[in-house]
Amino acid sequence: MANYYFDNSATGHPKPPDVAQYINEYLKLGGTYGRSAYDRVINVSRIVEHTRTLLARLLGTSLTENIVFTYNATHALNNAIKGFSYRKKRVLISPLEHNAVTRPVLHLQNTIGLEFDIMPYNPDGSINLEGLRLFDLKSYDLCIVNHVSNVNGVVQPIAELKALLGDIPLLVDASQSAGHIPIEVDTWNIDMLALTGHKGLMGPTGTGCLFVRSPEIIIPLIHGGTGSRSDSFLMPDFLPDRFEAGTPNVLGIFGLYGALSANVTNCYEHEHFMDLLDRVERLKSFKVFRSLDVNHQASLFSITSNKYSPSELSEQLFKRYSIETRSGLHCAPLAHQTLKTFPMGTVRFSLSKYHNSTDLNYLYSALKELNHG
Amino acid sequence: MANYYFDNSATGHPKPPDVAQYINEYLKLGGTYGRSAYDRVINVSRIVEHTRTLLARLLGTSLTENIVFTYNATHALNNAIKGFSYRKKRVLISPLEHNAVTRPVLHLQNTIGLEFDIMPYNPDGSINLEGLRLFDLKSYDLCIVNHVSNVNGVVQPIAELKALLGDIPLLVDASQSAGHIPIEVDTWNIDMLALTGHKGLMGPTGTGCLFVRSPEIIIPLIHGGTGSRSDSFLMPDFLPDRFEAGTPNVLGIFGLYGALSANVTNCYEHEHFMDLLDRVERLKSFKVFRSLDVNHQASLFSITSNKYSPSELSEQLFKRYSIETRSGLHCAPLAHQTLKTFPMGTVRFSLSKYHNSTDLNYLYSALKELNHG
Repeated sequence: MANYYFDNSATGHPKPPDVAQYINEYLKLGGTYGRSAYDRVINVSRIVEHTRTLLARLLGTSLTENIVFTYNATHALNNAIKGFSYRKKRVLISPLEHNAVTRPVLHLQNTIGLEFDIMPYNPDGSINLEGLRLFDLKSYDLCIVNHVSNVNGVVQPIAELKALLGDIPLLVDASQSAGHIPIEVDTWNIDMLALTGHKGLMGPTGTGCLFVRSPEIIIPLIHGGTGSRSDSFLMPDFLPDRFEAGTPNVLGIFGLYGALSANVTNCYEHEHFMDLLDRVERLKSFKVFRSLDVNHQASLFSITSNKYSPSELSEQLFKRYSIETRSGLHCAPLAHQTLKTFPMGTVRFSLSKYHNSTDLNYLYSALKELNHG
Repeated sequence: MANYYFDNSATGHPKPPDVAQYINEYLKLGGTYGRSAYDRVINVSRIVEHTRTLLARLLGTSLTENIVFTYNATHALNNAIKGFSYRKKRVLISPLEHNAVTRPVLHLQNTIGLEFDIMPYNPDGSINLEGLRLFDLKSYDLCIVNHVSNVNGVVQPIAELKALLGDIPLLVDASQSAGHIPIEVDTWNIDMLALTGHKGLMGPTGTGCLFVRSPEIIIPLIHGGTGSRSDSFLMPDFLPDRFEAGTPNVLGIFGLYGALSANVTNCYEHEHFMDLLDRVERLKSFKVFRSLDVNHQASLFSITSNKYSPSELSEQLFKRYSIETRSGLHCAPLAHQTLKTFPMGTVRFSLSKYHNSTDLNYLYSALKELNHG
């Protein structure tokens, strides 16, 4: 079936059929998580813990309990950023951060005087590691990096970055990478990582997680009932309960379990996608925003046109070709400033594993026609 | 069909069929909320806003935009409590608060020195309004009250309380009342109210909301992308965006829309439920925890036994009669301290609208047998 939905960086669509299957299963089963001992709750808790295990496997970590479920990646990032104990009151961020990072950081600048610096970068926004070597890294409390840009699909060099940082904790925003490219939390020695369940992982909205290697570096953002140590007015100090106050989204976690166990593989070849980028680049009226390094390109990119504004181009794509895209700033004004596409933004195309060669060729044909007006 | 699930204060079960219907509809439809202009997003956004309208109607408020979607009631309460600007650093709380209130308050005690006092109360934990008149209410920043206790079902007198408080803001935890008893946010002049979608409202987990009458009294707990004012590193100052950072749980909100539009009515008579409480009270081995005022009893209650511990009794009910209950402290140690059932707790029975007279009679028969051992 033709698939002209190219807004998978907003939310993945379609979902694997397993998502609906497990959600409907949950609706029949009912019950909540870990707080009672009757069978219904035991069955629900088992799926929740299986999901945690599948996430640990996906992220390449043996620390399953250090993965805590959240509402979405934004909440996970807020807990990591606002829950952190700043001593030097300085953080280092990448030039391609989303507002899920820049807005919490700016909030802390306004409230506790947190300062931030942007890592040196190449024209595509990829971190310039050579330049970063000249920084006094020890003067920072925390480094925050967007693994894959939600604007141009640049993949940042996480392992190399952490090797440079040494003991400085690294927080990775994996919102656009999880489900698309490999993540090796333990091998790369990532300290904290946030992701969402409904984009590349193709699970439901209302799901996400935060991985935290050494939980003592952050305090919970949310306090409340955990079904554990209920005699205490303090949050339990063990994982995952410490960061999971309130009823978790068990219905959503069932759906995420379906998505993760479906194990969908890419229907298109990455080479074909890279070839598409090259071909679009040769269409004279467009400027393509992508990684300058072919080995650091994830499955999304942006364009601007010298004939249409981003919103006009997005509208033409939809009205004439039923192609769904997102235009504007993609909640990432810093990234667009870095790429010099601020404040108009770009039109973004973001793929899912379900796109095939025919879909990519169709997209190219549409852009080729629009290249002429 | 017989319904022996008496743990609806943990999560409502079963859900109306409309919940699955709208969730499956969403899974076919796809797309996210308010951030693009293609049809898929317009359709999704329409259901999200309809859901907000249904919630406003349910809560008796004309301020639809002042209802912001949250992960659950705990997150809504955390935003209200931690986002509040304390000047006198004193709050007043009810004696029946859940850890979703006491843990954030104790956290603020430990971090900013917030002091709290407990309102005077009657033996069932209902607020003693006569006693409260003697308090210097002007010395408090905020008053927090659990509308319906999740331990004994006491309904607190919200309108009378707010009349006493005058200008002192009132935050109501409606986790156990919404969907069960009337709430009149505008008539009662409630300042803030938190609720969850998956209990009395019978929607999915991962849904909840915070109503805030004058949004300037709190700052957002979560900062991030809102799809609005994306050129700014600050949260937009308008509602609902100011408090809705990150992708909302659109799948869950579709399910909540189904639950709210299903408009399920009670299958049992409240008089029959009250009669059940009286009959259980006459069984000598049990002590019943309920409201002392028959007009202030919601659809849940607790018991203790002089033959079994709460966990043993809960287990007997399940093993011998397939009756599902929750034993222990129900994440409400303060309420159990108030009711003198700390630290062992009670066994709680919480009804849904789907229970009928036969279910209630079955529950009584089981308790009658267990009364003899």
